[in-house]
Amino acid sequence: MTRNYNFSAGPSALPEDVLKLAQKELLNWHGLGLSIMEMSHRSPEFVGVAAEAEQDLRDLMQIPDNYKVLFMQGGASSQFSMIPMNLLRGKTTADYINTGDWSKKAIKEAARYCEVNVVADMADNNFTRAPSQEELKLNPEAAYVHYTPNETIRGVEFDYIPDTGDVPLVADMSSNILSRPIDVSRFGMIYAGAQKNIGPAGLTVVIIREDLLGNILPSTPALFDYKVTAGADSMLNTPPTFGWYLAGLVFKWLKAQGGVEAIAEANQRKAEKLYGAIDSNAFYSNPVALNARSWMNVPFVLANADLDKQFLAEAEKSGLLNLPGHRSVGGMRASIYNAVSEAGVDALIDFMQDFSQRHG
Amino acid sequence: MTRNYNFSAGPSALPEDVLKLAQKELLNWHGLGLSIMEMSHRSPEFVGVAAEAEQDLRDLMQIPDNYKVLFMQGGASSQFSMIPMNLLRGKTTADYINTGDWSKKAIKEAARYCEVNVVADMADNNFTRAPSQEELKLNPEAAYVHYTPNETIRGVEFDYIPDTGDVPLVADMSSNILSRPIDVSRFGMIYAGAQKNIGPAGLTVVIIREDLLGNILPSTPALFDYKVTAGADSMLNTPPTFGWYLAGLVFKWLKAQGGVEAIAEANQRKAEKLYGAIDSNAFYSNPVALNARSWMNVPFVLANADLDKQFLAEAEKSGLLNLPGHRSVGGMRASIYNAVSEAGVDALIDFMQDFSQRHG
Repeated sequence: MTRNYNFSAGPSALPEDVLKLAQKELLNWHGLGLSIMEMSHRSPEFVGVAAEAEQDLRDLMQIPDNYKVLFMQGGASSQFSMIPMNLLRGKTTADYINTGDWSKKAIKEAARYCEVNVVADMADNNFTRAPSQEELKLNPEAAYVHYTPNETIRGVEFDYIPDTGDVPLVADMSSNILSRPIDVSRFGMIYAGAQKNIGPAGLTVVIIREDLLGNILPSTPALFDYKVTAGADSMLNTPPTFGWYLAGLVFKWLKAQGGVEAIAEANQRKAEKLYGAIDSNAFYSNPVALNARSWMNVPFVLANADLDKQFLAEAEKSGLLNLPGHRSVGGMRASIYNAVSEAGVDALIDFMQDFSQRHG
Repeated sequence: MTRNYNFSAGPSALPEDVLKLAQKELLNWHGLGLSIMEMSHRSPEFVGVAAEAEQDLRDLMQIPDNYKVLFMQGGASSQFSMIPMNLLRGKTTADYINTGDWSKKAIKEAARYCEVNVVADMADNNFTRAPSQEELKLNPEAAYVHYTPNETIRGVEFDYIPDTGDVPLVADMSSNILSRPIDVSRFGMIYAGAQKNIGPAGLTVVIIREDLLGNILPSTPALFDYKVTAGADSMLNTPPTFGWYLAGLVFKWLKAQGGVEAIAEANQRKAEKLYGAIDSNAFYSNPVALNARSWMNVPFVLANADLDKQFLAEAEKSGLLNLPGHRSVGGMRASIYNAVSEAGVDALIDFMQDFSQRHG
């Protein structure tokens, strides 16, 4: 069996060891004679799997005790609605930083529930950088400040955590959670769709400070209520059990790699190598400001866009999959999440050099 | 490897052939060198898998062309909110039939969005039967009529489809979808959590008549809007791709069994055998009216409840898993969904007879 290198932006590569273990026990989990996905979510076995996954995530991210960890459904996009529904708490305005497509989606949905104040708009820079702290026109009366620490499509990542004073900071970490250490206590809430660094699509992780729970908008669906969800240990109804289990395996794998600190070193090395290969070769380019280049998503274009198709076709033949850029921007994008090995990045760089020599 | 018989109410048994195929291709789907769950939902390969699953479901249920099929997240419980949000369409009242715990949950959530008119309440009969058509006090001005064709916890199943005239009929078929042929054209909307007869938890199937789309409540989250979801082919954001893929495998498996007609015959045979074993032995009993006994969920109690624990422990030793009744009612429950084989039911009956002879 040949596994190819997979640079998909999401759903994306999972650790091969995790897939192998899941494969091995798919029909018979721990000798019980049934699959983990055939088991009641309220069985002691699954409740144990679920609790262990939460604890491992808490360990990995050093999540303080006054934060709840929720395992939800609906993807980060459902959070775009849940955030105002839960976090306005009697206020009527929220601050949003716009650094790209995902910020814009969050803003559009929030605007249906409150007045959205865009406190920095990187559209002015064609989304090629993050705003500095000084550029943020924060409103001290805002219910919360929302931002997207890493924009998957254009590969723009903040190199700092915004200081929002007493106003809770809310971060869509879908595409960079667990990629490097962060100080969770700086945030009111962190959320992430699983399908990049956590597990398969269909699971969403929410980390929220306890004092922010409660006081929802009256029209909030029961399953969108963080407090109710927390009170039911994320099992108000049947959760996506297989995804939760797989996320747990990914957390164990990450611990075995040395945790977030070790994976951050690897991620930095992978990213620096790849940006180095792009910057040192006139055949390729990346437009993002140096201090905002994402460790996770590396978009690049060819000097001659006529060669795009050939580049992608030859890459695929070389076992380098899913390199097209997002349909809204074109070009190429290599997503190099935690599960994409350094060997994969090396193979991509070798291919890029070879391709440019043959066509440059 | 030994697979046990699994009578879990949900998440529940999946066809072994489906699990084996999923296991085989878990790391390398169709020779592409990556897992189906590592693939973009917008890749032609996954879009093909998704479309084929929909078509197979359409074939199996003979879904008319004027119905949309949606693959959503959040479970049937999220539908409890989505239904009033989408289907009130300017009206302020809806009819609900109460036949048990799941009906009650649907009613409780709907009551947050509209006036709920309970048109038949089986609480009066301790939820041991379904109401007759004549008992339904339907309101011709209701936006819709909601009911639960099969109540998983107490094993109460309608043996007819209520006639609601021009008022759209909405059915929570989570626990009996695909168990027997039904006339979809009698319904405005059918929905089902996947984790009984469709696939793993985390996927919800919605079948809705096109003319009911649109005109949502203003506070409806974008992802709760059926029309928007339908317009995006259920890919407004990343869907639960692995669950969708597995559902597709289950649909193919069901076709290979001879479709819904053939599985219905098997289901009827399994249910009649098991109820026969209960009714013919004073050691066991089931309180549900004969015409409302579920083909899918068969609760029963022992004449001597002191033996419950021993019954369950010995059953588990005999490879008969997950037979405790729901925590709200106690006793036993055998859920015998499509994927539970006749051999499994036979093994359970043999065990029940043996146990009663030893303890009767």
